[in-house]
Amino acid sequence: MFNIALFGAGRIGQVHAANIANHKETCFYSVVDPHPASAGTLAQKYQAKIQTTEEAMADPDIHGVLIASATDTHADLIELAARSNKMIFCEKPVHLDLERVRQCLATVKACQVPLLVGFNRRYDPQFRRLKNLFDAGTVGKAESLLITSRDPSPPSAEYVRVSGGMFRDMSIHDFDMARFIIGEEPCAIYAQGSNLVDPAIGLAGDIDTAFIVMKFPSGVMATISNSRRSGYGYDQRLELHGEKGVLTAGNLKENSVECWSGEGCIAAKPEQFFLQRYREAYIAEWGHFVDVMAGRATPETSGIDGEQALYLADKALESLQSGKEIKLSL
Amino acid sequence: MFNIALFGAGRIGQVHAANIANHKETCFYSVVDPHPASAGTLAQKYQAKIQTTEEAMADPDIHGVLIASATDTHADLIELAARSNKMIFCEKPVHLDLERVRQCLATVKACQVPLLVGFNRRYDPQFRRLKNLFDAGTVGKAESLLITSRDPSPPSAEYVRVSGGMFRDMSIHDFDMARFIIGEEPCAIYAQGSNLVDPAIGLAGDIDTAFIVMKFPSGVMATISNSRRSGYGYDQRLELHGEKGVLTAGNLKENSVECWSGEGCIAAKPEQFFLQRYREAYIAEWGHFVDVMAGRATPETSGIDGEQALYLADKALESLQSGKEIKLSL
Amino acid sequence: MFNIALFGAGRIGQVHAANIANHKETCFYSVVDPHPASAGTLAQKYQAKIQTTEEAMADPDIHGVLIASATDTHADLIELAARSNKMIFCEKPVHLDLERVRQCLATVKACQVPLLVGFNRRYDPQFRRLKNLFDAGTVGKAESLLITSRDPSPPSAEYVRVSGGMFRDMSIHDFDMARFIIGEEPCAIYAQGSNLVDPAIGLAGDIDTAFIVMKFPSGVMATISNSRRSGYGYDQRLELHGEKGVLTAGNLKENSVECWSGEGCIAAKPEQFFLQRYREAYIAEWGHFVDVMAGRATPETSGIDGEQALYLADKALESLQSGKEIKLSL
Amino acid sequence: MFNIALFGAGRIGQVHAANIANHKETCFYSVVDPHPASAGTLAQKYQAKIQTTEEAMADPDIHGVLIASATDTHADLIELAARSNKMIFCEKPVHLDLERVRQCLATVKACQVPLLVGFNRRYDPQFRRLKNLFDAGTVGKAESLLITSRDPSPPSAEYVRVSGGMFRDMSIHDFDMARFIIGEEPCAIYAQGSNLVDPAIGLAGDIDTAFIVMKFPSGVMATISNSRRSGYGYDQRLELHGEKGVLTAGNLKENSVECWSGEGCIAAKPEQFFLQRYREAYIAEWGHFVDVMAGRATPETSGIDGEQALYLADKALESLQSGKEIKLSL
Repeated sequence: MFNIALFGAGRIGQVHAANIANHKETCFYSVVDPHPASAGTLAQKYQAKIQTTEEAMADPDIHGVLIASATDTHADLIELAARSNKMIFCEKPVHLDLERVRQCLATVKACQVPLLVGFNRRYDPQFRRLKNLFDAGTVGKAESLLITSRDPSPPSAEYVRVSGGMFRDMSIHDFDMARFIIGEEPCAIYAQGSNLVDPAIGLAGDIDTAFIVMKFPSGVMATISNSRRSGYGYDQRLELHGEKGVLTAGNLKENSVECWSGEGCIAAKPEQFFLQRYREAYIAEWGHFVDVMAGRATPETSGIDGEQALYLADKALESLQSGKEIKLSL
Repeated sequence: MFNIALFGAGRIGQVHAANIANHKETCFYSVVDPHPASAGTLAQKYQAKIQTTEEAMADPDIHGVLIASATDTHADLIELAARSNKMIFCEKPVHLDLERVRQCLATVKACQVPLLVGFNRRYDPQFRRLKNLFDAGTVGKAESLLITSRDPSPPSAEYVRVSGGMFRDMSIHDFDMARFIIGEEPCAIYAQGSNLVDPAIGLAGDIDTAFIVMKFPSGVMATISNSRRSGYGYDQRLELHGEKGVLTAGNLKENSVECWSGEGCIAAKPEQFFLQRYREAYIAEWGHFVDVMAGRATPETSGIDGEQALYLADKALESLQSGKEIKLSL
Repeated sequence: MFNIALFGAGRIGQVHAANIANHKETCFYSVVDPHPASAGTLAQKYQAKIQTTEEAMADPDIHGVLIASATDTHADLIELAARSNKMIFCEKPVHLDLERVRQCLATVKACQVPLLVGFNRRYDPQFRRLKNLFDAGTVGKAESLLITSRDPSPPSAEYVRVSGGMFRDMSIHDFDMARFIIGEEPCAIYAQGSNLVDPAIGLAGDIDTAFIVMKFPSGVMATISNSRRSGYGYDQRLELHGEKGVLTAGNLKENSVECWSGEGCIAAKPEQFFLQRYREAYIAEWGHFVDVMAGRATPETSGIDGEQALYLADKALESLQSGKEIKLSL
Repeated sequence: MFNIALFGAGRIGQVHAANIANHKETCFYSVVDPHPASAGTLAQKYQAKIQTTEEAMADPDIHGVLIASATDTHADLIELAARSNKMIFCEKPVHLDLERVRQCLATVKACQVPLLVGFNRRYDPQFRRLKNLFDAGTVGKAESLLITSRDPSPPSAEYVRVSGGMFRDMSIHDFDMARFIIGEEPCAIYAQGSNLVDPAIGLAGDIDTAFIVMKFPSGVMATISNSRRSGYGYDQRLELHGEKGVLTAGNLKENSVECWSGEGCIAAKPEQFFLQRYREAYIAEWGHFVDVMAGRATPETSGIDGEQALYLADKALESLQSGKEIKLSL
């Protein structure tokens, strides 16, 4: 049984809290959050302790930490945890600054603790199945990958301002997905973007609609289609074209009921909410981290994945700003 | 090149006229119709002759006749054509009275001319493909068959009155389909029906909604779901369950465009009109009759099929009226 | 917080155990099972007591019982619980003998305790949504209902022998569904069946494939298509045709991944296992029973539903054996 | 009745021949082809004359020409026809050299004859319906467009060598589609490509797999996904994301039959052959040209569309070769 300290009692922290509590090999031991009310609610629900960061890091009964706090606290908490010899699960991103990420990962490496970076989509059963079928040779060698990733509705301008921008905040998942599916590091990237959804996002200096094209050493290409608004639910799809055919992972619909009438056939739209859409992914992700803690596996999404995805986000931004394709150091 | 005389210049006659004219081995030679205007329009469009029944039957240049005239003229025209040594394509039904059908078929047999009864659905590429996959063993031995056959909108009460009733007029296609797919003659039949769509149909002594259950000697069962109204296009589907799985033949949609929005996904409804839905079936059916005329094939839907389907319609009516399952003589 | 005693620690008991434990208003208090090992495993997992039937019935701390034991114990346990003033959730059926059911329900009535009979499918979000859309007038007045209910694989002949037969064991769910959707009691029933799946089932005196047709006083008709084997997952679908169109509730697929190649498009089959397919239904069903216990609702599926569904099963069997449509007393 | 001279009796010429012959306002008057056998077959089938270019251009009975000959003859024939005062339908492209195209269009303009350039996909009922729904405001303002266009199998290296390259030969249709759907001229273009399908195509100096990104003045973006091979039929899809949702135009499947078994659900793949996929588009395209000839319409796809699509192809190539986004003159 692994005792876990949870940092961050917000929306995503609550998801993880339930998964920690439900897993038969983990115990939701304590919660750390600057807002006493948030920490209190969660602590009471799961009969967990409330601790300060210092207490948790110093507590010898804690085996692992789950960092789901504000983005700008991730790197510091990772380093603290590493030095305290805790096993680390950290929500993406490690940090919005690439140099800081590298520094942080060096610390983790020096302390020799496992670090899993929470790219939850890799653990989604749909995408995982597509990847497995591809690896099994179902469509032969990969030729092109299309990633569709469109949020149901845009964040506030306040959030956008501290988010690091669309590429570092949102596309970062898709950069990781492309690397996961293709199994190579891209060698060139191009990005094009617009501010079409909300003028406030433009005023905050960001875009809300983007197309990204990447090329990989083997010649395979990937494109990412991003938007901060879909209007029809959370749109999360993959299309992997290979020599022999195409593998697609479609959206999960809200229900299976259809109404056929003179106006046509009306069916359900995709699940609206990411917690709904990726419910099983979060459970599987936590299961994998338990395997890591138990020494049965090494992290499938580790620090290097966090670093590489952020590197691609930085380079996509450079491309957008320069109007040029950017060559990437492998 | 086979010269064809067309009896009946109405809606279905016009469909056949085009198929006769377009087939490279047939010539639309003449048209016979009591309404001079209808005959004239068709004759002019395809540069065909206008003839009387007597002229057509006596014309030595005519190889085959296509009977698409009023239902009550079918049997007489078939006999005339048979005695005139013409090859015969006749729209279903041969006649609404089973005894008259048997008489008529005896004449055809005596005259040794080929007769094809126009059960167009057997020639539909969708249903044909399902049948072929079944025959190829895809789902193993048949266990149950579900036939859905629902018209987009009800006929007039006038039509209903002379139609022979829903079973003889509409379900007859489905009786033939069940025999075609299963490949056996049923040994028991049960029918249940209601007048739900249009009170005028009830006043005309008929039903407009029905479920029919048939059992076959091997134990396979089939059910037919019929309605004179669908509200969402022409609903024509098959589901054949076997040992290993199920084969389904779905509707053909009007188009492939979908609109995904907050209200869900709106897609096209099935093709509304039978001429649209069975366009390819009518072409294939005519191609088959040309093969019959050329001696390359024997009729897949011959007199016996017309007789058996009518027999089942009669027995379904007997079941509906008696509230009993009817045992069938094989 | 309601304390619950669970009778039966088998497969379905385990499902309920988890739902009882996870619901914030119920406590999995104790488990009763003739097999000590089964009871022990469940008791340990959820830190529940192990009790005898007598202990549980006598325990004043227990508010409700969940009866998921062997079918032939249901009626006795219901009566015991009713007399002990416990609120009762009982898996279907109440009993396989209609007279015994009526006796039992009389006792429940006399004791004035709420009884919920576990027709889980009524609580399925898919079927519930279809029902709600129908009630909202989406397709107008009902005309015909098609229920498809096919199990992935047949039970053992041993099970079949004590099951009460296919209609009482399997179709009973569909009888309840038809009553639920249409909202009327049927006035006539007809059943046809075969032994096609497993000869051992035939030797045990039962059928494994069936079509049932019911007529309702308003003229609406329903048909049920049953099989003990599907070959392609658990097939659970509804099609409700009304004046203006049709509402369909389709299967839930195992995943959303498709592979398009020269052989066509391969997609996932329906969920194989009923616990998977009806996972959410069981949770919702338990939530409803909690509402009943809290006085916020009356049972949607009560004793009368159990009685009526069994009555229809009996009459279906009578129809099958007599080859006649059976008129029903409303 | 318009008399039409057809230039080119090859595959696409044969498609047009049938459409000319079947249209009630056009007569397939003559065929011109350097291969006597090809011309002869077509002439005989439709009872058309065989003419030389000079004879056709000089023939006062000919109202319109349909140019479906080799690409390098298009511009010359257009100019000849324009000077001979014939109305012109020309298959894409006008010419592979942009300057020659402009020269040629100047001649057409000077001669004041209508010219329709055969971008057949604009006339496809699926894409047309999507465009109409978009214009009707179904999804609000456009935000991003995804065009998928993948051929079932690659052309020969010989063809590739004279094709003008993938962008001018294949993507040119998609450039036109993007302009058609969005209704603006793009202001920036980027292209990335690979040689993955057939090494012979690479040796011929071309690519066979490409992603193209375009930006339009309003901020809308479009991406094109191209491949010379699909492995699963002709893949022709559109996805137009707008403020309120997304419109998609999916592939047309070969049939509606599905087989559900233990391996999943196997459905038909998209139509394999472009003549099949775009059969209705070619008919509608010809119908539109007849409207143009009759003065009822002006060409929806005229010389300027041919010129702009080629301009985009040239700039895409420039982007591919330079690794830069190219700004476009509007």
